Amino acid sequence: MKDFEFYIPTKVFFGKKALTYIPKELPKLGKKTLWVFGRSFIKTTGLYEKLQNLLYKAQIKYIELGGVKPNPLLSKVIEGVEVAKKNKVDFILAVGGGSVIDTAKAIACGYYHSENLWDFFERKAFPEKALPIVAIPTISGTGSELNEVSVITHDIQKIKHSLRSPLLFPKISFLDPTLTFTVSPEYTAYGAIDAFSHVFEFFINRENKKEDLTEDLMIILMKNILKWSKIAIKQPDNYQARANLMWASGLALCGLIKAGIGSYRFALHAMEHPLSGGYDIPHGMGLAILMRAWIKKYKENDMIKRFFEKIFELPIKNKFMVEKGVEKFEEWLKEMKIPLNLKEIGIPYEDLEILTEKAFKIFRLYKAEKEYSKNKIKEILEIAYF
Amino acid sequence: MKDFEFYIPTKVFFGKKALTYIPKELPKLGKKTLWVFGRSFIKTTGLYEKLQNLLYKAQIKYIELGGVKPNPLLSKVIEGVEVAKKNKVDFILAVGGGSVIDTAKAIACGYYHSENLWDFFERKAFPEKALPIVAIPTISGTGSELNEVSVITHDIQKIKHSLRSPLLFPKISFLDPTLTFTVSPEYTAYGAIDAFSHVFEFFINRENKKEDLTEDLMIILMKNILKWSKIAIKQPDNYQARANLMWASGLALCGLIKAGIGSYRFALHAMEHPLSGGYDIPHGMGLAILMRAWIKKYKENDMIKRFFEKIFELPIKNKFMVEKGVEKFEEWLKEMKIPLNLKEIGIPYEDLEILTEKAFKIFRLYKAEKEYSKNKIKEILEIAYF
Repeated sequence: MKDFEFYIPTKVFFGKKALTYIPKELPKLGKKTLWVFGRSFIKTTGLYEKLQNLLYKAQIKYIELGGVKPNPLLSKVIEGVEVAKKNKVDFILAVGGGSVIDTAKAIACGYYHSENLWDFFERKAFPEKALPIVAIPTISGTGSELNEVSVITHDIQKIKHSLRSPLLFPKISFLDPTLTFTVSPEYTAYGAIDAFSHVFEFFINRENKKEDLTEDLMIILMKNILKWSKIAIKQPDNYQARANLMWASGLALCGLIKAGIGSYRFALHAMEHPLSGGYDIPHGMGLAILMRAWIKKYKENDMIKRFFEKIFELPIKNKFMVEKGVEKFEEWLKEMKIPLNLKEIGIPYEDLEILTEKAFKIFRLYKAEKEYSKNKIKEILEIAYF
Repeated sequence: MKDFEFYIPTKVFFGKKALTYIPKELPKLGKKTLWVFGRSFIKTTGLYEKLQNLLYKAQIKYIELGGVKPNPLLSKVIEGVEVAKKNKVDFILAVGGGSVIDTAKAIACGYYHSENLWDFFERKAFPEKALPIVAIPTISGTGSELNEVSVITHDIQKIKHSLRSPLLFPKISFLDPTLTFTVSPEYTAYGAIDAFSHVFEFFINRENKKEDLTEDLMIILMKNILKWSKIAIKQPDNYQARANLMWASGLALCGLIKAGIGSYRFALHAMEHPLSGGYDIPHGMGLAILMRAWIKKYKENDMIKRFFEKIFELPIKNKFMVEKGVEKFEEWLKEMKIPLNLKEIGIPYEDLEILTEKAFKIFRLYKAEKEYSKNKIKEILEIAYF
């Protein structure tokens, strides 16, 4: 085990009654909030009225900021900061998917920043203060409700960058699995892939590769996401499946499974961000395609073999184990009706060049350009194409 | 999954370099501390001088309170509160085992309390304020470094009670596994049993018995404690073993594995507290003996069978599985040289009556006297005797 820090200051209320804690908990954070949400979801599901009532009970005034889109844009963050400043809100309330929570996080630290907000994402500036954040996720996947990361897309550069600061942990997250009953099988699958990919990245790309407690935590998280995602896409209102997916997604990126792994690299995310940032496809779709490509390319690699062994229970001595491993992973994607390659989703082959350039730029930002050369990136994207 | 709250506000620095964060972190909590420790350990291992230097670097003044014993006494807590008040300390620094950390926690909330401190433990009063607590554990087991519980023994009544309050979470815990290199095989074993028993109690005595993510977390914690304890008692300076034991012990009682299990009952702890509280035996020794008795009595029970299946990988269809399961558990205790019964440690048979009475009193305090009748308690103690 390598040295690590562990810190999850977020208070979680989980379950069917999670939202009933709102009137007791939110007044501790202030009297006025900027309520951030997405497009239609909360208005069509009755959640909007439910929260209106709860905020009324809590005697919290709110200003709405709706219309956050998937792959959330910097322009929306800037709009939010202006509204928040003008109304002098006490905290930010995010109700929606990872995009909404990430937007709320960026607004929360933008509130105290007078310079260019994008500096945070290019790591030229670091937030020193932020408004408290409250999260109510309506889809399982990103884990943003339990971590200190915000991922935002630059409108013009069409590039996604992440910002990480302990200030961005939500103060409170209300996790009600029933809110995800109405998530379509398609988006349930993308969310599951996103959560799965977080664990997968830690698993394959870490300094400490020992079989220890943390590795076991990774394995059971992946196995649970795999198991419950299959049920949730078929039985949307299966509470067990939704609850396990929601909790697994939160635990997948809260710091628990990177405890002791040493340095690591989120290589698939670095390559995916130009995809969903540039073509506005679901983040989970891009990840699934790249994960498949990675697994195909590195199937003989020790960590991928261990992945096959532990997740799909394939005996390491089976001489077809690597082929079977790839097959098993593809079966899962097919069962969830997720496209397998870039061609299938209509990305022009010529674009692999520009995708390579953009990904390389991200690796350079992470100071990982030696490890991830343009050639290497291109090779993976080539496999991802077909 | 049942509804739950999840909250671990403690900041953890883990690893060989954990203590080097002291000069940066402690000044955030104040300038003066009450430094609580046990008997000889920190003075014979060089840890005392090391911490003196680090506190000097941090410019923190300290008042010492040494001599905390295992099964820590209320009188020591009262002494600590007096010293803390007299010296107007800003925070409490606990360096030692669970006894030391639990004493520090009780002092931290006793600081703001002018009435009888034991009221907290009899649940007649509840702490409303507490000094910040910093923990540096020197043995793995209790998990006190990552939770909100303090267990104290009443000097005269010879009874152990627990106090639970979110105020008792350490603000910071510095977990350095190398500090446990000098723990004897005997006490390493008792610590491992303590941590194991925490998971075991949640596993067997919970409302939600479903096979879900939380159950899987329990299983891998138990398996890791089992695996690494065997190594640590043979190779005291095996860093991997010590690190995994330390981290598993913390995770075992921090709230992670009770997420979603609904109501639960720490029945073995309720029965053990009169043992270690009354005879001053190691808490882990009492737990091992009672766990064995419980397993023997309930070996045909579904949850114990599932325990055998998951922990010892015994096929549920094997007709000797329950006998084999008991055997496997006993083998572990024997390998760690832990006494198997009350007779072996010299407890008079006649005392089972008074032990039953005392345990029953605890169950009554927990409002569980219907579930745990005197007869039932006596039966388990009878099995534990031989």
